[in-house]
Amino acid sequence: MTTPTNERHSSLGFGNLWAVVMSAEKPKNTSESVLLHPLDTAAAPEPELLCIFGTGDLGRSLGQRLLQSGYRVVYGSRRPTSCGPLPQGTQVMSHAAAAQSASVVFVCVHRENYEFLETLAPQLRGKVLVDVSNNLKKNLYPEANAEYLQRLIPGAQVVKAFNTLSAWALQNGPSDANRQVFLCGNSAEANQAVAKTATKLGFTVLDRGSLSAARELEDFPLQLFPEWRLPLRVAVGLIAALFFYVLIRDVIYAKVELGKDISFRIMVSLANKVFPIVSLIMLSLCYLPGVIAAFLQLYRGTKYKRFPDWLDRWMLCRKQLGLVALGLAFLHVLYTLIIPIRYYVKFRIAASTVLQMKENQTKEFNTVWAWQGDSFYSTGILGFGMFLLLGITSLPSVTNALSWREFNFIQSKLGYLTVFLCTFHTYLYGWNKFLRPSSYKWNTPPAFMLSLVLPTVVMVLKLLLLLPCVDRRLTRIRQGWERTDPKDDSRKSLLA
Amino acid sequence: MTTPTNERHSSLGFGNLWAVVMSAEKPKNTSESVLLHPLDTAAAPEPELLCIFGTGDLGRSLGQRLLQSGYRVVYGSRRPTSCGPLPQGTQVMSHAAAAQSASVVFVCVHRENYEFLETLAPQLRGKVLVDVSNNLKKNLYPEANAEYLQRLIPGAQVVKAFNTLSAWALQNGPSDANRQVFLCGNSAEANQAVAKTATKLGFTVLDRGSLSAARELEDFPLQLFPEWRLPLRVAVGLIAALFFYVLIRDVIYAKVELGKDISFRIMVSLANKVFPIVSLIMLSLCYLPGVIAAFLQLYRGTKYKRFPDWLDRWMLCRKQLGLVALGLAFLHVLYTLIIPIRYYVKFRIAASTVLQMKENQTKEFNTVWAWQGDSFYSTGILGFGMFLLLGITSLPSVTNALSWREFNFIQSKLGYLTVFLCTFHTYLYGWNKFLRPSSYKWNTPPAFMLSLVLPTVVMVLKLLLLLPCVDRRLTRIRQGWERTDPKDDSRKSLLA
Amino acid sequence: MTTPTNERHSSLGFGNLWAVVMSAEKPKNTSESVLLHPLDTAAAPEPELLCIFGTGDLGRSLGQRLLQSGYRVVYGSRRPTSCGPLPQGTQVMSHAAAAQSASVVFVCVHRENYEFLETLAPQLRGKVLVDVSNNLKKNLYPEANAEYLQRLIPGAQVVKAFNTLSAWALQNGPSDANRQVFLCGNSAEANQAVAKTATKLGFTVLDRGSLSAARELEDFPLQLFPEWRLPLRVAVGLIAALFFYVLIRDVIYAKVELGKDISFRIMVSLANKVFPIVSLIMLSLCYLPGVIAAFLQLYRGTKYKRFPDWLDRWMLCRKQLGLVALGLAFLHVLYTLIIPIRYYVKFRIAASTVLQMKENQTKEFNTVWAWQGDSFYSTGILGFGMFLLLGITSLPSVTNALSWREFNFIQSKLGYLTVFLCTFHTYLYGWNKFLRPSSYKWNTPPAFMLSLVLPTVVMVLKLLLLLPCVDRRLTRIRQGWERTDPKDDSRKSLLA
Repeated sequence: MTTPTNERHSSLGFGNLWAVVMSAEKPKNTSESVLLHPLDTAAAPEPELLCIFGTGDLGRSLGQRLLQSGYRVVYGSRRPTSCGPLPQGTQVMSHAAAAQSASVVFVCVHRENYEFLETLAPQLRGKVLVDVSNNLKKNLYPEANAEYLQRLIPGAQVVKAFNTLSAWALQNGPSDANRQVFLCGNSAEANQAVAKTATKLGFTVLDRGSLSAARELEDFPLQLFPEWRLPLRVAVGLIAALFFYVLIRDVIYAKVELGKDISFRIMVSLANKVFPIVSLIMLSLCYLPGVIAAFLQLYRGTKYKRFPDWLDRWMLCRKQLGLVALGLAFLHVLYTLIIPIRYYVKFRIAASTVLQMKENQTKEFNTVWAWQGDSFYSTGILGFGMFLLLGITSLPSVTNALSWREFNFIQSKLGYLTVFLCTFHTYLYGWNKFLRPSSYKWNTPPAFMLSLVLPTVVMVLKLLLLLPCVDRRLTRIRQGWERTDPKDDSRKSLLA
Repeated sequence: MTTPTNERHSSLGFGNLWAVVMSAEKPKNTSESVLLHPLDTAAAPEPELLCIFGTGDLGRSLGQRLLQSGYRVVYGSRRPTSCGPLPQGTQVMSHAAAAQSASVVFVCVHRENYEFLETLAPQLRGKVLVDVSNNLKKNLYPEANAEYLQRLIPGAQVVKAFNTLSAWALQNGPSDANRQVFLCGNSAEANQAVAKTATKLGFTVLDRGSLSAARELEDFPLQLFPEWRLPLRVAVGLIAALFFYVLIRDVIYAKVELGKDISFRIMVSLANKVFPIVSLIMLSLCYLPGVIAAFLQLYRGTKYKRFPDWLDRWMLCRKQLGLVALGLAFLHVLYTLIIPIRYYVKFRIAASTVLQMKENQTKEFNTVWAWQGDSFYSTGILGFGMFLLLGITSLPSVTNALSWREFNFIQSKLGYLTVFLCTFHTYLYGWNKFLRPSSYKWNTPPAFMLSLVLPTVVMVLKLLLLLPCVDRRLTRIRQGWERTDPKDDSRKSLLA
Repeated sequence: MTTPTNERHSSLGFGNLWAVVMSAEKPKNTSESVLLHPLDTAAAPEPELLCIFGTGDLGRSLGQRLLQSGYRVVYGSRRPTSCGPLPQGTQVMSHAAAAQSASVVFVCVHRENYEFLETLAPQLRGKVLVDVSNNLKKNLYPEANAEYLQRLIPGAQVVKAFNTLSAWALQNGPSDANRQVFLCGNSAEANQAVAKTATKLGFTVLDRGSLSAARELEDFPLQLFPEWRLPLRVAVGLIAALFFYVLIRDVIYAKVELGKDISFRIMVSLANKVFPIVSLIMLSLCYLPGVIAAFLQLYRGTKYKRFPDWLDRWMLCRKQLGLVALGLAFLHVLYTLIIPIRYYVKFRIAASTVLQMKENQTKEFNTVWAWQGDSFYSTGILGFGMFLLLGITSLPSVTNALSWREFNFIQSKLGYLTVFLCTFHTYLYGWNKFLRPSSYKWNTPPAFMLSLVLPTVVMVLKLLLLLPCVDRRLTRIRQGWERTDPKDDSRKSLLA
């Protein structure tokens, strides 16, 4: 960077531009000034001076890091003489004096105390103000902190940045989830100046555009898996409900009707009934909204009509629904694979072999059972393999490497194939249990039958959508065609 | 951003630059004008006006999204009075009038209709034209749509962008595979202006350089796993061929020669023969081209000679070959682990125990068998673990975090270790089957022997390359050394 | 970058800026000049000319790629007439002449030969010098190559770039671990000019800030998993130590005391003892430093005091410790799941069934054993599932998608849950072995007991930290509060 005539701009990232402009004024000795200038540039320049308002924890952490990265730091404080220990090598001044000395000011002050900054408006005019603040809760204030700051000091260029980092990362540099600095602001130059500092501190910068994105950035560090809540609640609800259903039908039924205590089956057998059932239900919940949306579009004859809110929200958490289902399917696989090393299973097999020996009967090998069993396992394995593929392609870096057409092919085509394989796997499990009266203990259907309802519905509806006549119409609607219906004037309003 | 004196530039992302330039004219009050300017900047500015040519589906979707993101939108249409419903709050004008009112124009028109834009050249001079078009097929036209547009209107700055997004994403914002906006164009300022809009719409921008990249961007949404086709075809071909081979040797042989129906074994036993065999073959196909390339370089005595096309193409799909092989190895693991819960296996074990009892024989524990079996499983598990490690490091985000040396260490050193472990695992499976005549039913070798050919070749060739004298020469060639051969003048031509 | 008088600079990405500046001089016909300029820009421009110093391997590879990407290339060489074959279509000149003809110069020369460049200082003034060099070892020189180059030619703008790519990637374009070009330099304009070229060559650019980052970039290609070394050494050391411990207690004990040869158990049984034990120890090593750090902060009464070096280094490799532990846990899972298909296990089960038959005894089903066994497997499966979740969230792209709070929730809350589940799993394995004298062969405790020490310590310490009074104080300290201790003046010094 050049040594700009006006020191104030040195950190704004367009010092060189300034040099260009200055030389443009004197066209006669342009080349001279050009040649001389880079010379200065290369000479070890005095480190840039940055200003921090606030000597609290955040200010201290940030200041220490800035010092370590080769900046000079000056603090602005209400009580410059009694503000507690600060990183060695920094200066403390009044706010006004500190602001005057640097062109970038980090505001490490709570939003509640922003008001006093208004009095510094003259000193802050033309400065880059970096708002690093966060709130304790969402929607505490009507406007974002950074927007409030910009309103207070319209003459400054407010940039929202660094607020998504932990104080630890601010002090010690990037680590794990603290590698990216999101920033936004109305001035591209101010954004770039802050981006440069963030890069020098070792962070990767993501420019999120104008200051209207500040609210989003301020909400980011407060969020705790917002889009995972609904799917997790659905999962927990279904697991609890099915656990009790299976507990009653298996353990309590055995106790009451047969007088046997098989409560030890809770740990593995019951878990291995509940997990796959909930997994299959959630997998179909993942594909159901898409089918509903298609029918809604067909019914309405337009794609421009907004979906009802519940459907919108449902569609937005499909990925999470699917991933929770995949996690449960994974547990199901492990629970299934440990079956033969369980004490209970080994005991039963030995007992059955001994019995077979004692009764001296020769069991016939049943080829149909072998076919059924092996097909059951094979569809399960293939279904789980496909499911895993869906999961891998939903990793952010894999998704980003795919074109939209490729992503759609996997999540839609291969997704329905997964639903089919997993449903078929469950039907094969059922096999002859559907017609056997002993399946219906206390007149209730076995739990696996409950899990078949939704995926069967999804597959039937999807097959309907694949009928050529339906498919053709849907394709036209999705290409923008609308059914013109003279009586229906709701169409226009939704474009609002 | 300000409303600059020259409205045309307002969206080009250098409004502030303009302010600086203006102030450069009046050096006396520079500081004043600079200080005053940001003041305007901060004042809530009138939303920027963007122009959209075309009122079709794409234009409507994009317009709606731009409105929601705080832009004002004006449509340019051939028939401004009868162009169907448009998002509320937008205006429709003639193309000429619309173009005049904004500095960025989104061309949401099919390439077939670009020609009429030529008549608007005067109005579009100096504007940023965003080409969002896609074609239905690759190579439909001799030049990219965006380059064609640039040729039609040389006075405008054409930026190719947004074409990789689905219409849904354009209307509703980023989701899954629609998070990144690729753009390219000859003017850095125009690119940045479009990047700014894309960022405000919530997308992440990837600048792909000059307009010569437009063809690539236009081909992107049409592609459906181009680099996966060859590996998948190889996999399907091998699976089919080996399935029939195993089917004949196992099921049909048993039927014909022994009169037994073991067709039920198709579902699991046969699958669990075919998958690991194809997996091992494909894993060695993944390392074979590297070895061939090394021998070719040794033979030619230079690294500057281009490889034959088939070798080039083969080397480019090594990653995909390896990942398909990993998928098959994963299926092999699952098929193996469910063995003990299969009806057929449980039946056979019980029968054998009963038989053992009846004949009152005491089987001797065979330590050699125990060693062989356990080594077989252990090498399999370790090989699969290493294979999985190779797979994980080929995830884009993991690969990006590695230095070239690290990536090479894993994919090459650990890769050959994986080949060794998996091949050794298969040899241990063979064990004494190689010399047993009963292995060669109908005079054909067992399928697993077929799978050993390629990996053995790869390992032998690799060992040759590791010989110090060969290795030294290869290293020199790869550092740029060339064997000077007076008769060989093909060397120079390949540098062309 | 400075003001170029000379058209030569038009390709540096601010040709249009120049147009604006020029128009600023003549305010009367601004619009005209602005309108004319883009016209030229758009007209198919002559390809930009780039200069490469050095005709070695790197220079040739880079030159070939630049040519293919549409640049013109001129080489600077000491002996322009006898410098060996170069890509067809390029020119070779003296260094001085070549430097004069282009504005960007790639220095493909070994650092040892940089000195001669000093004589070219006048010709290189104002040029962008791209330093692509690497050293053979770290810390070979007191300053980074690029900084040395900048010192030699202060009038040029040195940009460090392309050095992290393999020569293969420089010649053939991006592939796998060669997709990103890291660059750094003191001039934002020079950086951008180089970034533009890198983008055109197909790479993704990551700007790492000022030239002070050059050392880091030069060290990058030399590194071979530096942060994995300590964890891998710990893992190998623990595996070796425990292997011998288990070997002595199991195999040698059986040989010496019982006269039985069970050495075949090494391959699976011993591995499946060592791997889970080391995995659990390393998992607790992953959470131990965090607990120690908290107690240290409590003891010191401040968070501003730097941790001892050993603790710092330990904390920095927690992620790697955890991932190695996960890998071992994965092997443990596979080794466990193949248990029932092992020859040894099948033999033993058959023998036990036969024995049971012979002795005509009826074994009673032990419900307590069933509970214990099933709980043992269930906690193991759940623990492994949680562990896998921790592993997935540490994939870079997943970590980046999480807010700091979310990452913390998973790695801390769910992490301690994982430690608890895995420790409980091991206690369930122990069950009644703790009190059984036969467990203590040769008066040594079983290996699994050793693995329980550390996780138990971690959990007890963590529970102490969760006590409300301790937790409150720790929270205050982490918010910046410091215990004021008149005798303790070490506090200030650490802020240095």
